[in-house]
Amino acid sequence: MIYVISGPSGCGKSTLIKSLMARLPGLQFSVSHTTRPARPDELEGRDYYFITRERFEEMKAGGSFLEWAEVHGHLYGTSLDEVNEKSRQGDLILDIDVQGARQVKKKLSGVRFVFVVPPSYPELEKRLKQRKTDGPEAVAVRLKNARQEILESAIFDYLVVNGDLNQALEELKAIVLAHRCLFERRQKEFREILKSFKSWP
Amino acid sequence: MIYVISGPSGCGKSTLIKSLMARLPGLQFSVSHTTRPARPDELEGRDYYFITRERFEEMKAGGSFLEWAEVHGHLYGTSLDEVNEKSRQGDLILDIDVQGARQVKKKLSGVRFVFVVPPSYPELEKRLKQRKTDGPEAVAVRLKNARQEILESAIFDYLVVNGDLNQALEELKAIVLAHRCLFERRQKEFREILKSFKSWP
Repeated sequence: MIYVISGPSGCGKSTLIKSLMARLPGLQFSVSHTTRPARPDELEGRDYYFITRERFEEMKAGGSFLEWAEVHGHLYGTSLDEVNEKSRQGDLILDIDVQGARQVKKKLSGVRFVFVVPPSYPELEKRLKQRKTDGPEAVAVRLKNARQEILESAIFDYLVVNGDLNQALEELKAIVLAHRCLFERRQKEFREILKSFKSWP
Repeated sequence: MIYVISGPSGCGKSTLIKSLMARLPGLQFSVSHTTRPARPDELEGRDYYFITRERFEEMKAGGSFLEWAEVHGHLYGTSLDEVNEKSRQGDLILDIDVQGARQVKKKLSGVRFVFVVPPSYPELEKRLKQRKTDGPEAVAVRLKNARQEILESAIFDYLVVNGDLNQALEELKAIVLAHRCLFERRQKEFREILKSFKSWP
């Protein structure tokens, strides 16, 4: 099963995904390609594949991306190779923006779309200012983009309001766990149980 | 949202439902009518509405039941009044057998069906013998019925294997919680957030 998780910058999505992966075994994370420079705490191959704009355009022209988008002046893309390889190993999480989510929705079926939102505009503003990674102008751009993303979020299946982090984490976990309980995904387990019932008098 | 939870006698369904309701707020339990005598620990109106066979037949003839079934020689039924009243107060859990589940599936849409199974035949046999509420003959009947129920379980949406109680409980909880996160069920919350974004520059 593939999960697309989107949400405005500052909604706490990355923290949520990291906590989810630490708590729920059997999850894979799709590492995106980006032209954005690495932040001090980011690792090549773990957080992103950091590439030049030239290489990005080459891959794009070669049809290597499932989705790509330009966000805040940088290019981000999910390669098909990454999705194919990781989804064979377990449930796969894609952390992408709303533009990207729309492209995935058109190309793949059976994907679940989760939208993470901050509880309100003032709360998002507060969080973005507290992060101190952006100046006032960058914060203003992020807030404007946040509004646009929220306006375009109708394509999503699930809504997680990240007011309380633990509550939001529990909800995200529930979404993944509930899908693992679907009858059609437990056929193998079910057949084993059925067999044990049939082999007795 | 209405959840039908079924599973063979001895699968641990009642314990699971009780624990779920203790842990997850906002859940209602649909109390069935039955002609079975009350067990020492059961309370009228909490576990069942205990009625005579005559009264049951009257209600059945009057179209009062959403579903009814005869199980191990006793009649069980879910009244429409009970479902209408309780489902207005929150998510509603129906603890009914496979025959009843099939009737609900025909009559109501949007219901989620969860099937709880023991991990294997020998394990179910062990549990039924340990309960000591039934003699060897009753245990044999329950095992035979369990096999039949498992064979007919294809109508269910979710499968919860009750090997480890905590794991099964977490899965059941996840199924309910995930549905509460559905975008269409969070319209009111979403509109409030949207409003706060629209009212800022």
